[in-house]
Amino acid sequence: MKQMVREAQGSITGALEELCSVQFVEDRWSHAEGGGGLSRILQDGATLEKAGVNVASVWGTLPPEAEQVMLHKEGLGTGPHQFAAVGLSIVIHPRNPHAPIVHANYRYFELDDGRWWFGGGADLTPIYVYSEDAELFHRVHRDCCDRHDKTYYPRFKAWCDGYFDIKHRGERRGVGGIFFDDLRTDDPESAFAFVSDCAASFLPAYIPILARRRDQEYGERELRWQGIRRSRYVEFNLMYDRGTRFGLRTGGRVESILMSMPPTARWEYGHQPQADGPEARTLDLLREPRDWVTKD
Amino acid sequence: MKQMVREAQGSITGALEELCSVQFVEDRWSHAEGGGGLSRILQDGATLEKAGVNVASVWGTLPPEAEQVMLHKEGLGTGPHQFAAVGLSIVIHPRNPHAPIVHANYRYFELDDGRWWFGGGADLTPIYVYSEDAELFHRVHRDCCDRHDKTYYPRFKAWCDGYFDIKHRGERRGVGGIFFDDLRTDDPESAFAFVSDCAASFLPAYIPILARRRDQEYGERELRWQGIRRSRYVEFNLMYDRGTRFGLRTGGRVESILMSMPPTARWEYGHQPQADGPEARTLDLLREPRDWVTKD
Repeated sequence: MKQMVREAQGSITGALEELCSVQFVEDRWSHAEGGGGLSRILQDGATLEKAGVNVASVWGTLPPEAEQVMLHKEGLGTGPHQFAAVGLSIVIHPRNPHAPIVHANYRYFELDDGRWWFGGGADLTPIYVYSEDAELFHRVHRDCCDRHDKTYYPRFKAWCDGYFDIKHRGERRGVGGIFFDDLRTDDPESAFAFVSDCAASFLPAYIPILARRRDQEYGERELRWQGIRRSRYVEFNLMYDRGTRFGLRTGGRVESILMSMPPTARWEYGHQPQADGPEARTLDLLREPRDWVTKD
Repeated sequence: MKQMVREAQGSITGALEELCSVQFVEDRWSHAEGGGGLSRILQDGATLEKAGVNVASVWGTLPPEAEQVMLHKEGLGTGPHQFAAVGLSIVIHPRNPHAPIVHANYRYFELDDGRWWFGGGADLTPIYVYSEDAELFHRVHRDCCDRHDKTYYPRFKAWCDGYFDIKHRGERRGVGGIFFDDLRTDDPESAFAFVSDCAASFLPAYIPILARRRDQEYGERELRWQGIRRSRYVEFNLMYDRGTRFGLRTGGRVESILMSMPPTARWEYGHQPQADGPEARTLDLLREPRDWVTKD
């Protein structure tokens, strides 16, 4: 898993650097107990206003708050427990309001009693929903899921829709993707193969979208709407996202956790998009999850 | 209380309108069960980039989640309970980065068994800390507290420092002020007199600061730092503020609750203010609460 996430980090940042003629900056950090991470960060680029592609591999004693959260995992004896975790996190905030925000995270977790789980997912947050983009993103992830287990995509797609729910707004964060947690299979190799395939699906699911939207024309109207959608992204992450809230509450590395935050955001009182405009259409599409790919 | 908050809303918006040559826009809304509110909102003004001065008076059946939160109030029998609440909320985000954000809230709550409480407070969030501003804000509130009970200011000042703590950053939201909850005195009149005096202290505590900062010179550097401090304000409100989190989770009116959000905010990865600059000095002052007024 450590090797896989490092390689994925290399290929993803490499592809973005080539497409956008930029160079990510590296930030290496250590975990107090053991291990650490390597963040690759880009800020204020012409195409990518803010992007982070981070890997981490940490181990130590499971904090009591984490133990509490994991009580649902069957048969966890009383601690303290030793744990090890390896993860890859990607968040991209493009500058062009026509290009969607993307987030992906794949992680492996094991406890000192030998039990292990994989988790992760990828989801797309358009400022303006383009059906062809949502379809591509879902199709690539569906095909990836189907290669491993035909039940994965329907389950993980629904899990994603349920998770990225900005409850107080009655809106989803975006058009979804896949989300799964506590994934255990009969043999670790098959779960690892699935997660590796998911990570490898990131580029084909997102790069074509970024490539076709990055130079699309926009003006003040689109930037204002982008600011508003970015604020909803912030509301979700700080109000509901388990990783964010849990990480911040248990002394996680603030910069790594909040790498997900958009570069800017905008809150207006009582904002209502113009009726029948593309903003209102996007909002309509975010109110209820929909199937972006059907059997074909 | 209803009359007091309406009059305070009138005098506060009136003073701001006169100082800034603007006009607040009214937004009247109804509560599903009973009552409603009147928001006075200003957006995109030359001096006030975003401001809200809102009153609400609502009643109905206490939601189960609210009952849960109130279990600490001694002797609350099993519900459902009828409640009534009256409140005044003020949040001002000036455009000039030298002018501080201000927040105040005063509220009255009563249950069907005749018990009642007051709560509230006011706190100042400078982008750049000016000692004379923090001192004025604290002195006016200390004097107000002292007129009613000499124990109030030390207790409510410490309560405010403890409450507006952005724990994951190791920073306070601002330079504090006063904060109190569950306030009951032997007679309701003395508690009401105190809260009325607090509300009346808003203008003398803030208007002189706004007046002397609104035209102070600033450029890109100050705007960037303002964006960053505003993002910390967002982090506090969505991660920790009880009113915000509780309101959003129990179906409160989203626009009224999130009126507190800044008009814009900015997140940079790994931002560090320039050593020895005014930004670093402000950050230093926000790391630990300090006494802004001493006995004089």
